[in-house]
Amino acid sequence: MPYTIGLDYGTNSVRCLVVDVSDGSEIGTAVYEYESGQAGILLDSADHNVARQNPSDYLKGLEVTIIEAIEQAKKSNSSFEAAQVIGIGVDTTGSTPIPVNHDGVPLALLEEFKDNLNAYVWLWKDHTSYAEAAEITELAQKEHPEYLAKCGGTYSSEWFFSKILHCLRTDPVIYDAAYTWVEHVDWITGVLTATDHPDKIKRCRCAAGHKAFFNDAWGGYPDKDFLMKLDPILGLLRDTLPEKTYTVGESAGDLSEKWASMLGLKAGIPIAMGAFDCHLGAIGSGVAPGIMVKVMGTSTCDVMVSDISMTLQDIPGVCGIVDGSILPGSFGIEAGQSAVGDLFNWLVNYIQPGGSDAGSHASLTEKAQQLKPGQSGLIALDWNNGNRTILVDQRLTGLLIGQTLHTTPEEIYRALVEATAFGALEIINRIEEYGVTIKEVVNCGGIAEKSPMVMQIYADILGREMKISQSAQTCALGAAIAGSVVAGAINGGYDDFASAQSAMTGVKDVVYRPILENQAIYAKLYELYKQLHDGFGVSGNTISMANIMKDLLDIKECVRSNGCLKI
Amino acid sequence: MPYTIGLDYGTNSVRCLVVDVSDGSEIGTAVYEYESGQAGILLDSADHNVARQNPSDYLKGLEVTIIEAIEQAKKSNSSFEAAQVIGIGVDTTGSTPIPVNHDGVPLALLEEFKDNLNAYVWLWKDHTSYAEAAEITELAQKEHPEYLAKCGGTYSSEWFFSKILHCLRTDPVIYDAAYTWVEHVDWITGVLTATDHPDKIKRCRCAAGHKAFFNDAWGGYPDKDFLMKLDPILGLLRDTLPEKTYTVGESAGDLSEKWASMLGLKAGIPIAMGAFDCHLGAIGSGVAPGIMVKVMGTSTCDVMVSDISMTLQDIPGVCGIVDGSILPGSFGIEAGQSAVGDLFNWLVNYIQPGGSDAGSHASLTEKAQQLKPGQSGLIALDWNNGNRTILVDQRLTGLLIGQTLHTTPEEIYRALVEATAFGALEIINRIEEYGVTIKEVVNCGGIAEKSPMVMQIYADILGREMKISQSAQTCALGAAIAGSVVAGAINGGYDDFASAQSAMTGVKDVVYRPILENQAIYAKLYELYKQLHDGFGVSGNTISMANIMKDLLDIKECVRSNGCLKI
Repeated sequence: MPYTIGLDYGTNSVRCLVVDVSDGSEIGTAVYEYESGQAGILLDSADHNVARQNPSDYLKGLEVTIIEAIEQAKKSNSSFEAAQVIGIGVDTTGSTPIPVNHDGVPLALLEEFKDNLNAYVWLWKDHTSYAEAAEITELAQKEHPEYLAKCGGTYSSEWFFSKILHCLRTDPVIYDAAYTWVEHVDWITGVLTATDHPDKIKRCRCAAGHKAFFNDAWGGYPDKDFLMKLDPILGLLRDTLPEKTYTVGESAGDLSEKWASMLGLKAGIPIAMGAFDCHLGAIGSGVAPGIMVKVMGTSTCDVMVSDISMTLQDIPGVCGIVDGSILPGSFGIEAGQSAVGDLFNWLVNYIQPGGSDAGSHASLTEKAQQLKPGQSGLIALDWNNGNRTILVDQRLTGLLIGQTLHTTPEEIYRALVEATAFGALEIINRIEEYGVTIKEVVNCGGIAEKSPMVMQIYADILGREMKISQSAQTCALGAAIAGSVVAGAINGGYDDFASAQSAMTGVKDVVYRPILENQAIYAKLYELYKQLHDGFGVSGNTISMANIMKDLLDIKECVRSNGCLKI
Repeated sequence: MPYTIGLDYGTNSVRCLVVDVSDGSEIGTAVYEYESGQAGILLDSADHNVARQNPSDYLKGLEVTIIEAIEQAKKSNSSFEAAQVIGIGVDTTGSTPIPVNHDGVPLALLEEFKDNLNAYVWLWKDHTSYAEAAEITELAQKEHPEYLAKCGGTYSSEWFFSKILHCLRTDPVIYDAAYTWVEHVDWITGVLTATDHPDKIKRCRCAAGHKAFFNDAWGGYPDKDFLMKLDPILGLLRDTLPEKTYTVGESAGDLSEKWASMLGLKAGIPIAMGAFDCHLGAIGSGVAPGIMVKVMGTSTCDVMVSDISMTLQDIPGVCGIVDGSILPGSFGIEAGQSAVGDLFNWLVNYIQPGGSDAGSHASLTEKAQQLKPGQSGLIALDWNNGNRTILVDQRLTGLLIGQTLHTTPEEIYRALVEATAFGALEIINRIEEYGVTIKEVVNCGGIAEKSPMVMQIYADILGREMKISQSAQTCALGAAIAGSVVAGAINGGYDDFASAQSAMTGVKDVVYRPILENQAIYAKLYELYKQLHDGFGVSGNTISMANIMKDLLDIKECVRSNGCLKI
């Protein structure tokens, strides 16, 4: 019986999954919470934009979780042996670049730089580099509009070159000490395969294509001249970036003797090329043309694939459309919201409403789900962490409107959930406008698993059935699927993703269906959301706002008097 | 040694003060918290607009506080005797009308109506009558624009006729059972003087002029035809309203034998005509031409007087300009904000941020006062309870903008304080535009007493020195001053308010002065407040909003990097 391992590096922890290749059943799992900083994130009290991580957390998590998951697999299935593991796949957050030295060692692991946050991993949600992002966008608009067309029209402060340029501008010592910068995911596959020089680290299509302007159409990574115009020194970085990138169907190399013996696995089994968590999560949720997979966590990633044969227009505001970034042989389309779970977490953890124990997610959800749509009179924008899609603007912030002297925490909680759903609808509408049909939505990730209220609100607001992926750990499962494909049928795996997904993925029986009455009210509220979205988010717009508070009150009164259908 | 008594009926309690007429010193005081409902307010869970009170709380409070204050006066001054009390003054909230029967008994005190909230006192902050307010405004615009000109251009849902018309429309049984409707303040002076029929209850100029369209220029209360057009039945109410109203310098009658014996006071001492709390608070703070008195409590009342000799234009959006409503012989000008303390209370009591004990006013203030202006990146509108001045629109709600994933409760608390100050500046600017100069601001009420942070923010935002009234109970003190004037010099009191105020009022040594650096930042933030205020509050405006989040971030970053003076 063959098994594969999927490793999923999230924002606060890493998970490992041991998966039965025949049916996708998960026979062993382990989670390691990063020990550094605040829930694994190194913060700077003087600058809220800073979000870094410690690479030693990644290494420790790698070892701890694989060993523990294997132990667990042995307990749950007495016939299981570690030698039956035929491949490993990896996903991480991103764009999460790491400055490394000539030996591929992250600078943060060197004694001399251990006190400098810039030497650490620049986590996806680090937003220090917004000025550089604007600069890159401006130059690309002028010189290489084709670069921008594949990533939604705006280069983000969360992405590879923004962060590197910011480091160059603000901390040249660190910049100079770095031989090159490597995405977290590529660094991990490099570690497992004992790659001994950064030049040999294979880089994945997913990170390169979605976050670093990589496209075979213009010869790979962006032109050296382009980078030199941003900064002559940055131009030199181009020489350390390879000509070729790889999809998750390809091998990064074989598991090294050293790591095999540390982990108790067979040396030489293939390590699949990595990808970002949401992309492998989409694979683990059965992504295929016509299906949008929403990976719902602290932030949300919306993933689709589109036949390579189809003529796909560029979609303004959509993060990326990259050949092979998700499934080999398809265009990967990625969109997303910068804060979804994080927005609810903000209310629970920072505002801590409701006194002592009343402000937990569970307690707020219990009360919020008793509210009818429109009943609170509130509407919010979901921009506390900026807007990734479709405005691609980090310098946007939250907004809450409609408060009275009786507004309760659960009303605000529900308004924040609704705001994220309106933001999700905005994304779907934009993608469909450009000819990509979304027939089905499959959700995965913590929120999809845990909150029926959130899922029902999404069904009502998106006007679509919400399905839930069978696995609670679709990212890790997707990584394990990649492991099974690089192993190949000859070793007990699969030769393509379609067969692997067909055997190893599925959806749950529970399906959240839109409720007609709720849809009608949310359609009204979405108009108001759209007004605020376009008014506050799109420069140059002058939109009248004086109706908004009154419309919210009208809807509220209507709902409270059970007259909502008349709206 | 002569003394007077001031009775101050607030929103949640009634206070009594025994005052030394010679120097205003307060030798005895007592407070009675209303026992009914939630902090004295009868609510309806099905309709947040409902806010009623129980008249029996008023009667019990009258007895309890006067007796207790006299006891206390005796203890603090052994030579004091109750027989030295030469007069009594009264203030209450308003417009707070009470439906009464032929005997002047509030319907709520009759067994048959005790379960009907409409039979109770319609507290100022009851907002059930917004539709009727709009109807009255519309009719007055067409038929009697002069009515509206004296009350800011819009008739409010908080006011006398809106509430009565709403009762007529929604609960004809109660309406029919009422002989007439009497303001809380007039009912109290009627009770103390044992007035035996509602027709004999003298009505005060303050309530009639500011809230019920009374003006000698058009023959007192509004024309019967006007009321009949609103509703033929309402027209009949006009017959129960007197031709004449009275200023606080006039007597409502003498203390009855019954109440004198209950309270241990001399029968026959004069009871001054009452007025609204903020108007007597202004008198107790030394209001005079050029001085604005801000009575800062749950809501805020801004009170000024202007020489009767001056030609005073009507000021759009300012609640009222009434001859003799505050001081006899002056125009009284009243403006105000519907929620100030209540806005901070909302955060503390409803949202309860910060877990267990961290969300008190004291704790939030302690942290909020360490923030610099602009540092939070937040801005709010102070409309959770609508906008009384200058938009006069109950159907406006709160707005908070600029939240990130790191926004804290104390940042929101400070933003709400700042929002009320911006709202206050909006009022001052409007009044000054119409030729009334405001040289000095004297603050009184709980917030002025208790929160140096709030006062400093007000000084910085209003760009004026904030002085604090000497007395902590200026409303009750103002009532006691009125008691001293109706007693007259012949009985040891005064013959006019100027002499009484000169002897009995003053300001504290502490003065909050604007800090130049803060003023500069707040001037920037006020521009953004103004943009939101005019965009969300004034129908027909189309104002671009897309700069707001970015400007807030710019200001925030500037302040955090100590570069704010460059703005």
